[in-house]
Amino acid sequence: MISPTADESAGHPASGLNDIVHQRVRLGILTIARESPRVEFTYLRTNLEVSAGNLSQHLGVLENAGLITIEKGYAGKRARTWVALTAAGRTALAAEITQLKLLISQIEADQTSPG
Amino acid sequence: MISPTADESAGHPASGLNDIVHQRVRLGILTIARESPRVEFTYLRTNLEVSAGNLSQHLGVLENAGLITIEKGYAGKRARTWVALTAAGRTALAAEITQLKLLISQIEADQTSPG
Repeated sequence: MISPTADESAGHPASGLNDIVHQRVRLGILTIARESPRVEFTYLRTNLEVSAGNLSQHLGVLENAGLITIEKGYAGKRARTWVALTAAGRTALAAEITQLKLLISQIEADQTSPG
Repeated sequence: MISPTADESAGHPASGLNDIVHQRVRLGILTIARESPRVEFTYLRTNLEVSAGNLSQHLGVLENAGLITIEKGYAGKRARTWVALTAAGRTALAAEITQLKLLISQIEADQTSPG
């Protein structure tokens, strides 16, 4: 189960990041899936520059967490896999963005130190 | 070897994220280490809410990548481990932040879609 609240911990912003959402490829999947009602597997693979196996693995993690749905079908004679963000996925992505902004603002507040 | 340039890839911002830096605990280590000349192991562990073993593992990854240095010593009779950001670590963290901002701005440019 995902806990999408961003400020659950009083610790460092990084400790409030959710590994399921934060992981690089999964963050990319969620971000791209957010842009349209559904997105095709090949489109994700091309844009995120990952292997089909790697992408499938990360899609499985997100599906198990209830953050996306995966639908298999056909476009003409070609088998296609479609990915769609769930409401929980949208919420989890928003929480990640909130937490990242907190982290960034903390770093930038410290920009007076020698770079 | 780390490639700290943020815009190496013309693909999605997520594909430009560096896994070594982006991983949640390691991003936390680098962010905290950025704030002072050196930071103590226990301080990192408390702030990032991770086990000693987990923290050690991530410190090893960062040290091998040349992003931090690890120094062991004593404070009185107590053994202490100190972590310091290298110049490469500072550059890699800056590249991560640049890439995260790009990702966030891309998501927020799309905020007109139903939330």
